[in-house]
Amino acid sequence: MSLPSVAAMKMDTFPTIRDQRGALTVVELGSLLPFTVVRLFFMTGVPAGTARGQHGHYRCSQYFLCQGGRLQTIVSDGAQERTFILEPGQGMLVPPGIFASETYLEPNTILQVLCDRPYEKDDYIHSMDELRAWRAKA
Amino acid sequence: MSLPSVAAMKMDTFPTIRDQRGALTVVELGSLLPFTVVRLFFMTGVPAGTARGQHGHYRCSQYFLCQGGRLQTIVSDGAQERTFILEPGQGMLVPPGIFASETYLEPNTILQVLCDRPYEKDDYIHSMDELRAWRAKA
Repeated sequence: MSLPSVAAMKMDTFPTIRDQRGALTVVELGSLLPFTVVRLFFMTGVPAGTARGQHGHYRCSQYFLCQGGRLQTIVSDGAQERTFILEPGQGMLVPPGIFASETYLEPNTILQVLCDRPYEKDDYIHSMDELRAWRAKA
Repeated sequence: MSLPSVAAMKMDTFPTIRDQRGALTVVELGSLLPFTVVRLFFMTGVPAGTARGQHGHYRCSQYFLCQGGRLQTIVSDGAQERTFILEPGQGMLVPPGIFASETYLEPNTILQVLCDRPYEKDDYIHSMDELRAWRAKA
């Protein structure tokens, strides 16, 4: 099994059309995602400075899409850590086997997550120790 | 061909988990959508009172998901018109052959639209007359 690394991770910026009626951002998923979206969730009303996430997934692939505000995402593969700042209309693929923590830098920051699997309680990697132990065996 | 009617349209309300870290809304698409999402777009920063949309689609199926604020959606099948008010965490399927107009009732109203087709310029129904003419022939 080839384990994903944070070195290979990157941000995408989607086209936004702005006029007096607001901003419209378009995401074409066909060419973007290596999976079909079966579940999505989004976070709103998060107080600025709040950290969420702080877990990884064994199987679930996710795509993080910032829809408002400003989001700091720290990702780790157990060996290397990287920080991304997502602004509205920016996103990044977060494959399984990556630990991610998100800090909501501004009020009205909105993060939407697109997933390739339904919710599975046993799919969560709760700590860096658990991540490293699993990656060492994988 | 069986043409969709607004009589059959309905709103869905998705579970939202609220705590001091904000609100998390989950949408399980597998059981919700009769299609695979290949494109999404979302509108932000729309001045309150603005009307957008005001078109239909010949082929594209869409799912409207309200992520913030409050959205009035007026839908018509050419014979009957209905009005829905979507609040955050509420959504509705808008099949092809339905004309829809959305009024953003509050500042920070966010509408996301999930689509089963890429952007196709010739897929737009621009007026009620065009809708009725097409439905009469379909």
